[in-house]
Amino acid sequence: MSNGPGFFVSFEGGDGVGKTTHVRLLGEWLAAVTGREVVTTREPGGTTLGVELRRLVQHGEDMDARTEALLYAADRAHHVASLVRPALERGAIVVTDRYLDSSVAYQAGGRELSEAEVEGMSLWATGGLLPAVTVLLDVDPVVAARRLTGEPDRLERAGDDFHRRARDTFLRRAAEDPTRWLVVDASGTVDDIQAQIRVDIAARLDLTPVVDEAVTVRDAP
Amino acid sequence: MSNGPGFFVSFEGGDGVGKTTHVRLLGEWLAAVTGREVVTTREPGGTTLGVELRRLVQHGEDMDARTEALLYAADRAHHVASLVRPALERGAIVVTDRYLDSSVAYQAGGRELSEAEVEGMSLWATGGLLPAVTVLLDVDPVVAARRLTGEPDRLERAGDDFHRRARDTFLRRAAEDPTRWLVVDASGTVDDIQAQIRVDIAARLDLTPVVDEAVTVRDAP
Repeated sequence: MSNGPGFFVSFEGGDGVGKTTHVRLLGEWLAAVTGREVVTTREPGGTTLGVELRRLVQHGEDMDARTEALLYAADRAHHVASLVRPALERGAIVVTDRYLDSSVAYQAGGRELSEAEVEGMSLWATGGLLPAVTVLLDVDPVVAARRLTGEPDRLERAGDDFHRRARDTFLRRAAEDPTRWLVVDASGTVDDIQAQIRVDIAARLDLTPVVDEAVTVRDAP
Repeated sequence: MSNGPGFFVSFEGGDGVGKTTHVRLLGEWLAAVTGREVVTTREPGGTTLGVELRRLVQHGEDMDARTEALLYAADRAHHVASLVRPALERGAIVVTDRYLDSSVAYQAGGRELSEAEVEGMSLWATGGLLPAVTVLLDVDPVVAARRLTGEPDRLERAGDDFHRRARDTFLRRAAEDPTRWLVVDASGTVDDIQAQIRVDIAARLDLTPVVDEAVTVRDAP
């Protein structure tokens, strides 16, 4: 499935790496400079059903890897069918905090399932929808862990090896498909990171007249 | 995956056909005549997580066919991993009210997904676990609907064509694999139906000394 008249961006990376902040800043800037509808969202939990599934999978009873992978795929299927796809068909820009690559990195990369079966299930769930751009906010898991606040969930409690394997999976997938992926060193300042993202997205959206503004993060409303 | 030392029985058929009653009667009788552990259960909703998934899929917000199929598969994966497989490995007899064939009949037979993809997902979810016997309680959907009481759920609200296609799917699958399936005309009395089921299961479990008792439904404790 194509992105239709819309433009679909996903953010990936470990917990605490700044995805939520950068999704918001990019969304605000894109709305200002393009005048287009911008939808910012997340997985898991981008819909009402998704919020319940997120609670079950992250804070519910213990479950095996297949059950967990199926619940994340169900969240994604509903998110795409009820929110992402309709927005793209309206011509909106959709920016999501995590998408398919998180499932490959966390359900397959660090556990017992193969990447091919987890990715295949997500592609089936979404009718094959892939982002035009996937921004990887890359940082050493130990650095990211220091930024975390609040209650640790199941993923956050997982061992360091788990997070290191997930990072390796993200980086390998990015290297295999550089057209889709933009890898940004997330150990820098928020302004520097956001500026790099804006320059890349501006070029892809043919926003060349605003590339100079793109590097000025504070211009966002 | 094999059933291990256990013995796995599923009941299939439309709503209101008497599956709950016959699962209970068969379970009580098997416990009495074999002395083995008997676990009776159901899908969806055979586990704590499953109860929540059942509520979401049957009484929650509208969802597309893929989301629904993934949620039923997640319920099945967790049911098998946490309850059915451990029981079979202990040597128990497990009798479940609905299993994989319901997904094929309802998520594929009546809607937009192919039988192959729905069945494939369930087999992936369960590690390939199939019942030794699947009892189809077969009755015309109009007759079954008259027996129903209580609040109609999403499936029950579906049109007659939906139920007729599901019945056709059950019957076709039974014809294709007569070793696994036992088709019983469910328009008869409870005693007659249960007696037919007991004779068949007794033969499969090599309970020939008790076949005479098998036809006496009232002997169950």
